[in-house]
Amino acid sequence: MNILVTGGAGFLGQQLIASVLARGGLCLDGSDQPRMPDRITCFDQTEGRLTDPRVFNVAGDIADPATLARLIDAETRVVVHLAAVVSGTAEADFDLGMRVNIDGTRYLLEACRARATRPRLLLSSSLAVFGGELPAVVDDAVAPTPQGSYGVQKLIGEWLVHDYSRKGFIDGRSVRIPTVVVRPGRPNGAASGFASNIIREPLAGREAVLPVDRAVRMWVSSPRSAVSNLLHAVSLPDAVWGWNRSLNLPGLTVSMYEALDALEAVGGPHARALVLERPDPAIARLVQSWPDRFSTDRALAMGFAADASFEAIVQAYVQDNAEAVSALRS
Amino acid sequence: MNILVTGGAGFLGQQLIASVLARGGLCLDGSDQPRMPDRITCFDQTEGRLTDPRVFNVAGDIADPATLARLIDAETRVVVHLAAVVSGTAEADFDLGMRVNIDGTRYLLEACRARATRPRLLLSSSLAVFGGELPAVVDDAVAPTPQGSYGVQKLIGEWLVHDYSRKGFIDGRSVRIPTVVVRPGRPNGAASGFASNIIREPLAGREAVLPVDRAVRMWVSSPRSAVSNLLHAVSLPDAVWGWNRSLNLPGLTVSMYEALDALEAVGGPHARALVLERPDPAIARLVQSWPDRFSTDRALAMGFAADASFEAIVQAYVQDNAEAVSALRS
Repeated sequence: MNILVTGGAGFLGQQLIASVLARGGLCLDGSDQPRMPDRITCFDQTEGRLTDPRVFNVAGDIADPATLARLIDAETRVVVHLAAVVSGTAEADFDLGMRVNIDGTRYLLEACRARATRPRLLLSSSLAVFGGELPAVVDDAVAPTPQGSYGVQKLIGEWLVHDYSRKGFIDGRSVRIPTVVVRPGRPNGAASGFASNIIREPLAGREAVLPVDRAVRMWVSSPRSAVSNLLHAVSLPDAVWGWNRSLNLPGLTVSMYEALDALEAVGGPHARALVLERPDPAIARLVQSWPDRFSTDRALAMGFAADASFEAIVQAYVQDNAEAVSALRS
Repeated sequence: MNILVTGGAGFLGQQLIASVLARGGLCLDGSDQPRMPDRITCFDQTEGRLTDPRVFNVAGDIADPATLARLIDAETRVVVHLAAVVSGTAEADFDLGMRVNIDGTRYLLEACRARATRPRLLLSSSLAVFGGELPAVVDDAVAPTPQGSYGVQKLIGEWLVHDYSRKGFIDGRSVRIPTVVVRPGRPNGAASGFASNIIREPLAGREAVLPVDRAVRMWVSSPRSAVSNLLHAVSLPDAVWGWNRSLNLPGLTVSMYEALDALEAVGGPHARALVLERPDPAIARLVQSWPDRFSTDRALAMGFAADASFEAIVQAYVQDNAEAVSALRS
C-alpha cells in the first residue's frame, strides 16, 4: 500500500505524515489495527523535511498532468489532497488559484481515474465555501454560497470529487476544515493567517497585527484536531459517506476577545500587549464573509471531534513548539 | 453592438437568433426600445442556417481557446452560451462532457475577461443541477445537489459565472431551463428527449417510445417560453441580479398521463396509439432524479413567465411546425 500526500511539505502535510508514522500506519475501513504504508509520497512545490525510509519527498508542479501520473501507481491506495493556493492569495492572484485549485485537483482526479484501482481520495476543503447571508448557525443542510475565489474553487473541487466518486473512478470524500490555529512557522497567504499570528508571534516575543475587530468570531480547529480529523476521514469506509461526499468538520467558535484572553492566560499580559490592532478592510471583508458557528451533527455522528477550548489550543501549541516560545510568562 | 450565441445552430439557438431579428433587436437594461445588433455571431460545431446580413455563421470547436478569442471582440456586448453536451451524452461520455461543459465554458469566460469590456454573459443551465432527496416543491432556497455529470458540470459553470461576475470580469447570469418540449427535428442525446419524441413523432405519423412510467412528472417549458425567458434574462440590468447570479426559470409540471392526453386532444386517438411504452431504467433513473415541481417566486418577480398549459404547448408546436405535422386528426 502506497499513499500520496499533496501539499505534503506544508505545515498540515508534515504533521499528517508524521502522525501516520507515529501511529504505526493508517487504520482503514473500521479496522483498529494500523497498517504501515510501504511508501508515503510527500509531494509539494518544495521537498518535505521528514527523513524516514518510507517517506519519499518529491518536489514538482501540481498542475502538471504528467507529474501526477507518475506519482500515482497501481499500489496507491490513499491520496490526501492538501495542496492549494490559500484564500488571500487566490483572491489576489485569480489565475494562480484557478490553476492550482481547479486544474491541479482535476489532473489529480484524472491520474487516479487512469489507474482504474479506485483509490481513496480526500480533498481538504474549507469553511470558505460558505458566505454571504447565512443563518446564525450553519448546519449540515445549509447550501454552500462562497463569496471569494478560494471558496468557489474549493466548492468546484468538492463537486468533482462527488462526481468522480459517483462514477466509480475514485472513492472520494471532502472535508471542510475550520481555520487552523495556531499555525507555527512563517505566516502564509491565508486571509485568516492573523488568527495564528496573534498567538504565535507574541509568544515568541514579537509583535503581531490584528486586522479585524475584537468582536469578530472565527470557526477554528487546532492542528492536532485537524490532522486527527483528516486521518479519520481517510479511515472511514466508503459506505459511511453515502451520496453526500462533503462534510463540515467540528470546530470551535472563538472571538478575538477570547483569543486575546487565552493569549494572556498562557503568555501573560506582556504577550497580549504585543498585539497591534490595525484594521484591514480587505481581510475583514473576506474573513467576516465566513460563518463563525456550525452545528456539525453529521460529523460528530461519524466520529469526528473538536477541541475542548481555545486556551487548550494555545497550550497545545506551546507544548508542540517549545523552541518557538521564547518569552512565556517571563 | 455585437452579440455571440454559442450552440447557435442548435434548435434553441436558431429560435433565439430568429427571435432577436423578429423583435428588431435586443431590449437592454430596462429599455423597451429594441436595439438591433450590428453583428450576431452564430457559433456551433456546424454552421447555422439563418441567412441574414447581420448573422455570421461560424463553425468551430467550443473547447479551443484561440477560436473563442477570435469570436469575442471589443464590440461584443452580449454572449448567450447555449453550447453544451446534453444530459444523456454527458453521462455516457464523461470526457466529452467535461471538455465541452467545463473547459468550453471556462475558455469562453476567459475570452470575455481578456477583452476587459465586461461583456454580459448568459449561461443556459438546467434543472438537472437538482437531484436526490428533494422537497416536493423546489423553491429558490433549495441547494443544488446534482446526481449526474451533466448537472455537476452545469453547476460548476454557474459557480464560475458567479465568481467571474463578482470579480468584475463579466456581467454574468445563469438560468436553469426546464426540459424544453416540444423540440422539433431529430432526437438529441438528452435523457429527457422522449418528452418531445412522444408528441412530435406521433403527430408526424411515426411511432415513439415512452421509456418511463406514465406517472412520471416533468418540469417543462415550451421553446417559445424558453427563448422569451432567455432574452428576458439578457435584458435585465446587472443590479437586478445582485449577489445571486443563478435562477430557476418558471415552467409547468406535466405527468406523462397528461402529456398523452394532450397529444390525443390535439392529434386524436390514433396519434396516441403510436406511443410505445418501453421502460428504460437508465433514462428513468436520470429523469426521475430531477425535480418535477418548482416554486419560482424570484423569477416571477423578475418578470419571467411560464406556459399556460401543456395542451397549449402542443398547440403552439403544431402552429410553429405545420410541415412536420402530417396526420392531424386525419
